Amino acid sequence: MAVLVKTNRRVTLAARPEGFPKDSDFALDEAEVGEPGPGEVLVRTLWVSVDPYQRGRMSEARSYAKSLELGDVITSQSLGEVVESQDARLSPGDLVVGQLGWQEYAVARGGSVRRVPEFLDPPTLALHVVGMTGMTAYFGLLDVGQPKPGDTVVVSGAAGAVGQIVGQIAKLMGCRTIGIAGGPDKCTDCTLYGYDVAIDYKAADFRNALKAGCPDGVDVYFDNVGGEVSAGVHARLNVGARIVICGQVSQYNLERPEPTFHPGLLIVHRARMEGFLVTDYAHRYDEAAVRLARWVAEGSIRWREDVTEGLENAPAAFMGMLRGENRGKALVKVAERGG
Amino acid sequence: MAVLVKTNRRVTLAARPEGFPKDSDFALDEAEVGEPGPGEVLVRTLWVSVDPYQRGRMSEARSYAKSLELGDVITSQSLGEVVESQDARLSPGDLVVGQLGWQEYAVARGGSVRRVPEFLDPPTLALHVVGMTGMTAYFGLLDVGQPKPGDTVVVSGAAGAVGQIVGQIAKLMGCRTIGIAGGPDKCTDCTLYGYDVAIDYKAADFRNALKAGCPDGVDVYFDNVGGEVSAGVHARLNVGARIVICGQVSQYNLERPEPTFHPGLLIVHRARMEGFLVTDYAHRYDEAAVRLARWVAEGSIRWREDVTEGLENAPAAFMGMLRGENRGKALVKVAERGG
Repeated sequence: MAVLVKTNRRVTLAARPEGFPKDSDFALDEAEVGEPGPGEVLVRTLWVSVDPYQRGRMSEARSYAKSLELGDVITSQSLGEVVESQDARLSPGDLVVGQLGWQEYAVARGGSVRRVPEFLDPPTLALHVVGMTGMTAYFGLLDVGQPKPGDTVVVSGAAGAVGQIVGQIAKLMGCRTIGIAGGPDKCTDCTLYGYDVAIDYKAADFRNALKAGCPDGVDVYFDNVGGEVSAGVHARLNVGARIVICGQVSQYNLERPEPTFHPGLLIVHRARMEGFLVTDYAHRYDEAAVRLARWVAEGSIRWREDVTEGLENAPAAFMGMLRGENRGKALVKVAERGG
Repeated sequence: MAVLVKTNRRVTLAARPEGFPKDSDFALDEAEVGEPGPGEVLVRTLWVSVDPYQRGRMSEARSYAKSLELGDVITSQSLGEVVESQDARLSPGDLVVGQLGWQEYAVARGGSVRRVPEFLDPPTLALHVVGMTGMTAYFGLLDVGQPKPGDTVVVSGAAGAVGQIVGQIAKLMGCRTIGIAGGPDKCTDCTLYGYDVAIDYKAADFRNALKAGCPDGVDVYFDNVGGEVSAGVHARLNVGARIVICGQVSQYNLERPEPTFHPGLLIVHRARMEGFLVTDYAHRYDEAAVRLARWVAEGSIRWREDVTEGLENAPAAFMGMLRGENRGKALVKVAERGG
C-alpha cells in the first residue's frame, strides 16, 4: 500500500449556494498531492485570493466561464512557491501566481503560471495591484473607459480591490475622481486611495451627494456593483459617457439578476455601456504589470491588504468580502515561504 | 387693417399626451405666413414626415432635444419648394428638406435646409432612404454596430422606416440578416427588403423562432423597439456583440420607461451597448447621402412609402405609425409641386 508522504488540504464546493453562500456550501478535505508530469510544476500555496467573481463559478447559470462541479476545488488566483519542476523555465523556490485554487498544493502547466519578480515587495502584490485586480482596473479603465484629462470618473465599489486601483489610475490620467462605497470607514479608505470625493451609498442623501459631487456630470462610470447605486449614477451621465461594466456584485446572490437599466438612456446621452473580462487582455498583461509595478514603486498607487490566516478560513473570508466587511484586498495566508 | 394674403395651416401641440397620444393632443390652426429676412428662405411644404422620435418631443421629460411647448408646431422633417429666397445659394423652385414642421409654410435659414438633387426620383427619398431614416440606418449600423462580413445582424422594427434600410445595408456588407417585425404582413415586407429570415414577435413561438433563426448567435443587434422583444435577442448574443440603441418605441408611451436590462449580461458576452443620434453625424451627411443614393439607383436598396393625404391627417398618420399600422415609410402629402 502506498503511504501518503504529503496530504493536500483543499476547500471544495459541497453545495451550490442558494442566494447568499453559507458555511455548509464548502467542505475541507484532504487528497494526495499530485505528481508533476513533463512540462508541469508542483506549487506549494502561500496565499490564496478571495474575489467576487468566484461566486459566479459556484452557480450553474451560463456565464463566461465553466461552472464548478460539486466536489471541485474552489477556483482562485494563488501565490505559491515551486517545489518540483518539470518545466525548464521554472525552478524550485521560484514564486509564481496562477489559477491554482483554494488548496495547499497544485500541479499546473509551467506555461499557465506567471513568475513573480523578486523585486516585488511584498510578493502578494502579484495577487492584487500587480495582479488580476490591478489589471482589471488598468484595462477596464484605460481601454474600455478611455478617460481624458479633466473627465469626471465615478467608481462604485471604490474601496474594493479593483475600485481602489481604478481611482488612482484615473488620477494619474488627470481625471477628477468620485468614489462610491458603503459606510463611513470605507469612505475614509477612499480618501486614502486619493479619491477627490467619497460618497456613502448607504447614507440617506446618497443621490443629492452624488449630484453635489459631480457638478459637471459623469464622463466615465466604472461599475463594480450595479443595482440601485448604478441607477443613481446613470441619472448624471454626460453626453458621450462611457459605462464600464466590470462587476455587478449587488446582483450575484439573487436568484436571477434584476433588470435595473433601460437602454433608451443611452440614446439621450449618446453613451456607451460595455462589459469586459480581464482574461481577454492576457496578451497585454506584461504591459500592465510593468506600469502598475512602477506606479507602486513610485508611491503613486497605494494599497491595503485584509489578511485572514489559514486556508480553512477562506470560506469565511469570502463571505465577509461579499458582505463588504473587508478593508483592502481580501487575501488568505496559507503558509510561510520555505516552510 | 392688414389683409392676410396667404394663411399658413399648422398642426400644433394642444396638450402633452398622457400615455398613447390622442386626437385632442393636436390642434389645427392658421397663422400668417412669415417673411424671410436676410439669409432666410420661405418654403412651401409638399410632404411632411411622421417618425417615432416626435413622441419624445411632446413630453416634458429631459431628453436629447428641447421639448415642444404647448402651441408649438409639431417638429418634423419636411420636403418643400423654395418660394422666396434671401439666401444667394437657393432660388425659388428649388426643392429642399429640413426640420420645417407640420405646416404649409416655413421660414428657415438657408443654411439649415438641404437642397434635394434633381436626379432623386421620387424626391420624397430625401425624407427617408436618402434622408434622416437612411442616415440613421447608415451611421447606426456602420459606425456604431461595425458589422463584419459573415456576422449575424438582428434588427427589431425591421419593417419600419429605419429597420428596412438597416437590413439592406447589412446585406450589402456581407452579413446574414434577421428581421423582427409584428405580424405576418410585416414579416412579408421584411422578405421584400431582403432579410434572410423574418420573425414575428407577436407569434407564440417568438423565442424559439429567434433561436432557430440565429444558429450562430447574434453579433450585431440594431434595436429600434426595446422591451421584451429585445430581452429575447439579448439571450442570444455572441461574445463581442454590439447592441446599437437607435430607438425604444415600445417604451415611448409609458409613464416612465421600464428597466428591462441587467448590465451584467454585457460582462458575460463582453458586449457593447451604445446609443447614438443621427444629428451627431451632420458633418458626414454628404458621405451617407452619396452612398445611399447610389444604392437606390443600382436597385440595391428597396423601399416602400405609406402615404396619407392632407396635412390635417398628420396626427392620425402619426398615431397609426406608433401602433405599427404603416407599411413602409409613413409620409403625409401636403401639396403638389408648383401648385
